[in-house]
Amino acid sequence: MLPQPLENLINRISDLPGIGRRQAARLAFFLLNQPVKELRGLAEAVTGIKSIKTCSRCFNFTEEDLCVYCRNKNRDQQIICAVEDAMDIATIEKTGQYKGVYHVLGGLISPLDKITPDKLKIKELFSRLKKEPVKELIMALNPTTEGDATILYIERLLKEAPIKITRLARGLSTGSDLEYADDSTMINALLGRK
Amino acid sequence: MLPQPLENLINRISDLPGIGRRQAARLAFFLLNQPVKELRGLAEAVTGIKSIKTCSRCFNFTEEDLCVYCRNKNRDQQIICAVEDAMDIATIEKTGQYKGVYHVLGGLISPLDKITPDKLKIKELFSRLKKEPVKELIMALNPTTEGDATILYIERLLKEAPIKITRLARGLSTGSDLEYADDSTMINALLGRK
Repeated sequence: MLPQPLENLINRISDLPGIGRRQAARLAFFLLNQPVKELRGLAEAVTGIKSIKTCSRCFNFTEEDLCVYCRNKNRDQQIICAVEDAMDIATIEKTGQYKGVYHVLGGLISPLDKITPDKLKIKELFSRLKKEPVKELIMALNPTTEGDATILYIERLLKEAPIKITRLARGLSTGSDLEYADDSTMINALLGRK
Repeated sequence: MLPQPLENLINRISDLPGIGRRQAARLAFFLLNQPVKELRGLAEAVTGIKSIKTCSRCFNFTEEDLCVYCRNKNRDQQIICAVEDAMDIATIEKTGQYKGVYHVLGGLISPLDKITPDKLKIKELFSRLKKEPVKELIMALNPTTEGDATILYIERLLKEAPIKITRLARGLSTGSDLEYADDSTMINALLGRK
């Protein structure tokens, strides 16, 4: 028996991924106590992302035709880092170690989830590789079955191309405990020793 | 280096209680992939709660002068259940066992947090008790130090009044394990045995 607008807001919030009805109610009650200015700010922030589209070259999010990395002359435009989604770019950028550009695949190959290669921006990656003088393609995908399948698929199609294809190193996570490392991690850590 | 509107939305979302920057980013990226209609729906739901005010009698949320319970002739208007906040009303209503009305105190007495009785709707409760023919006042507050302090404070001031003041029963939670019950719960369960 909550007032209709409150019920409506709780429903909308609990539609968001990872937010249950209880947390949605708590958030809605919190917002109830906020000044109108704050509510308007949040509402405008939500609709404000309408102006965001994807980069015509790498499919990263941008408000212009090309994203900040593709526009940046100081980035090495001959090294492409393929990522699953635009969120992964933030993770890589945080390290400050990478100076190349990106290509957002928009997912990973997963036949069980009906994600076949044609659903991803793989065709667009290949046409980039044909047009641009790319020296290295870094496959920065999740170390999962889907990630590996996607890397294998792309590697196979690029077998003849004069492009160096690299993957992220696998091994122990910094700060982790050897005792709890799973077999696959341990095997990679051993094989990759140096 | 995210587009400004996206950065802005992530900041707004992470301002909400209990939501960290990581979850905020995940939610913002989710919203990025939603159709404009959905974004507008959420934004309107947020600003839509502006029309909600508090009941002039019990301080529950409502869009009219009186809330649904105060307006309802079928509810026993002579039994008042005092609660900490409006969310607690939903918890009580879910049981379907209560047919009286409510009074939202807006908090619990907590001198350490500078919440003194004058910050709560206690004065308003007393003026209701003077004006209305109330038979019973149920103190449905959290079983905490603050809840107990608030109950004691109100009970003391109403010592002379011809009103029955009751508290929620304390004891073991249904489905809980005796082995893990804390001392205070166990004492209450023993003393309240019947």
